[in-house]
Amino acid sequence: MPIRIVLVEPQHPGNIGAVARAMKNMGLRELHLVKPALFPHQEASARASGADDVLDAAVVHERFDQAIADCGLIVGTSARQRHLPWSIVEPRECSAQIIQSSRDQTAAVVFGAERTGLTNVELDRCHLLMTIPTASEYSSLNLAMAVQVVTYELWLAARPGAPPPPERDVPLASAEEVSRLYVHFEQVLEEIDFKDRTGGGHLMARIRRLFNRAQLDQNEMNILRGILTAVQSRRRPAGKV
Amino acid sequence: MPIRIVLVEPQHPGNIGAVARAMKNMGLRELHLVKPALFPHQEASARASGADDVLDAAVVHERFDQAIADCGLIVGTSARQRHLPWSIVEPRECSAQIIQSSRDQTAAVVFGAERTGLTNVELDRCHLLMTIPTASEYSSLNLAMAVQVVTYELWLAARPGAPPPPERDVPLASAEEVSRLYVHFEQVLEEIDFKDRTGGGHLMARIRRLFNRAQLDQNEMNILRGILTAVQSRRRPAGKV
Repeated sequence: MPIRIVLVEPQHPGNIGAVARAMKNMGLRELHLVKPALFPHQEASARASGADDVLDAAVVHERFDQAIADCGLIVGTSARQRHLPWSIVEPRECSAQIIQSSRDQTAAVVFGAERTGLTNVELDRCHLLMTIPTASEYSSLNLAMAVQVVTYELWLAARPGAPPPPERDVPLASAEEVSRLYVHFEQVLEEIDFKDRTGGGHLMARIRRLFNRAQLDQNEMNILRGILTAVQSRRRPAGKV
Repeated sequence: MPIRIVLVEPQHPGNIGAVARAMKNMGLRELHLVKPALFPHQEASARASGADDVLDAAVVHERFDQAIADCGLIVGTSARQRHLPWSIVEPRECSAQIIQSSRDQTAAVVFGAERTGLTNVELDRCHLLMTIPTASEYSSLNLAMAVQVVTYELWLAARPGAPPPPERDVPLASAEEVSRLYVHFEQVLEEIDFKDRTGGGHLMARIRRLFNRAQLDQNEMNILRGILTAVQSRRRPAGKV
């Protein structure tokens, strides 16, 4: 399955190893690490047990953007019940969608640091926010345990005999294309002197959330880019290109 | 939920702590340990994180029988694809049944030692054998990860709003009652001079499996005990009691 597990700033090398094992148990191989505190590390290798091949192939990045640049669907994970305008789904609900999306382009499931989780800036890059259901008394799963539950659900949805996920006509736009859209968008807003009235300069964050929630496909991406370009060319004085 | 997690001879104290956390995340509290290699232990406490209350309340036993004596439904777990005459189910299939059964009498889910799993003698005491689905390449989950997946499924089946499990009219017989039935059964077989023709003295093991698979309820238990007693009294010479 072309599904990538991304760990952002994991602090405990033992967790990285345990994640590698959890992934291999459930048929996943693509592990990406953003600024791990300690890696490689003997404790990671010890906990990986028979999954040292997954651990050895792990890709390390300096920035979160790099870890998801070539991905289509990006799913963030969070234990916290935040009051934020993301679509919150449970692993069981969205597994088939992740599998389906990964057929066109690598899908990413992103896990934040052990104590702090993903930042709002990182969540802004995600199409979906996934929460593992827990008892209310103690909702914070260990990082590797959370990966195990999510990869277990992915395996149930992907294994031979699993019901086929709903079809999507057109592949999702990649994270990089979406980033370029936002740069373009911001540029156009500047050119047309659009005022940010959100208070605190949240305009672009809101626009990003809106389009991320919508999960743009490649056709829609082309349409939006076309519109932005059209707006720009109408603004340009006649005679200039 | 009156559902007990039983770890038989866990070798790594870190796993015991991680199991306590996984349980509390999913609303479970009853942890029983049979001959743990190292317990209490600082590594168990460290991995338990916010679940030290579950860890502190863990009950330690010398023998497996003691850990399940007061339980009704007993579910063993195994990674191995053994060719054995137990009903093999997946966590999702049997969670509602475990919840339902726990309403009458504590249910137990039993996990074997990290490297070796449950022995056949231990599996003989179980009504069901549960296997977590995995990729075929690497099917051995870490012990605490296996507990996390199973307790996650139990929580999904038990949480408010979960579909109600099918009703059972009569409570299951307890493990202790079932043990006494087998003692009684063996006694009767001796008294009637029944020959073990299974080769290797497997007769009682086969009888145990058959009745465990059937998941005897308390009425059925009474009926069977009554039959055994009736057989015995017919065998006794007139005048003796």
